[in-house]
Amino acid sequence: MKILVLILGSILFLPGAMAATVAPAPNGIEMPQGYRNWRVIGVSHRSDNHTLRAILGNDTAVAAARAGRTLPWPDGSILAKLVWKDRTHPAWMTATVPGDFVQVEFMVKNAAKYKDTGGWGFARWKGMDQKPYGKNAQFVQECFGCHTRVSNNDHVFTHPAPLP
Amino acid sequence: MKILVLILGSILFLPGAMAATVAPAPNGIEMPQGYRNWRVIGVSHRSDNHTLRAILGNDTAVAAARAGRTLPWPDGSILAKLVWKDRTHPAWMTATVPGDFVQVEFMVKNAAKYKDTGGWGFARWKGMDQKPYGKNAQFVQECFGCHTRVSNNDHVFTHPAPLP
Repeated sequence: MKILVLILGSILFLPGAMAATVAPAPNGIEMPQGYRNWRVIGVSHRSDNHTLRAILGNDTAVAAARAGRTLPWPDGSILAKLVWKDRTHPAWMTATVPGDFVQVEFMVKNAAKYKDTGGWGFARWKGMDQKPYGKNAQFVQECFGCHTRVSNNDHVFTHPAPLP
Repeated sequence: MKILVLILGSILFLPGAMAATVAPAPNGIEMPQGYRNWRVIGVSHRSDNHTLRAILGNDTAVAAARAGRTLPWPDGSILAKLVWKDRTHPAWMTATVPGDFVQVEFMVKNAAKYKDTGGWGFARWKGMDQKPYGKNAQFVQECFGCHTRVSNNDHVFTHPAPLP
């Protein structure tokens, strides 16, 4: 019995097994799989909190962005925002580039399911260890509070960047 | 004969046909296909020329970046830099976001073929009409002139942004 516990313990705490298991957000949203491979929709630089961002989308979101059909974004769209602290490029003083990874944030479109927050579910995982943000499900009020100022853009700050 | 000329003329000048044919760079580099769907390696913001950038890579480049094997980048790596004029977000004054598309730039790694320019072939297409940059093949000296300052980083400014 002791041996079985030791073996099970070893399996459960293998670094690989740990990395594969990211806890869901307090509102139940699971981290979307494969977001690191999604395509880019936009970028941004915020001087208030000194961060650089890449905004990616899943296939549904990218198709909508490229077709110019984002008012509203279709159900099934997921936007991912990768956030890094900004820093000066060591060899180009007027270039700002990513430093430490801060967090990844998601907006998940489901007009019916998330009707109380503009049709979007919000979730955020902080740091390289991807810790879910928020003490309880009410954390989304903080997200939605800012996003209401872009209610005329389907509550999305990102305007897809033009591409040839 | 007149009718044949008219028909051929119509086909040649269809907007779709025009868009599909982008002239090669003056050094012979053809625009890499499908770069809009490549994955993100980094982002940057330049205050000297007021541009925001997304740096994407083909599969070879992304695999190298994620494995931390970029000194040197392997042959076959292609880096794409999408460049937009920066602008203030209309609803968030401290956020800078993409405005007009400026250009797309590429670095193509082939240590033997491009040995005179650090193992990299350079190419740039400007504007939404993707006009090749440079009067003749010597335009690469302008590219390489700046990139020599990062010769200790395989002539690449981009340091892949950390991801969990």
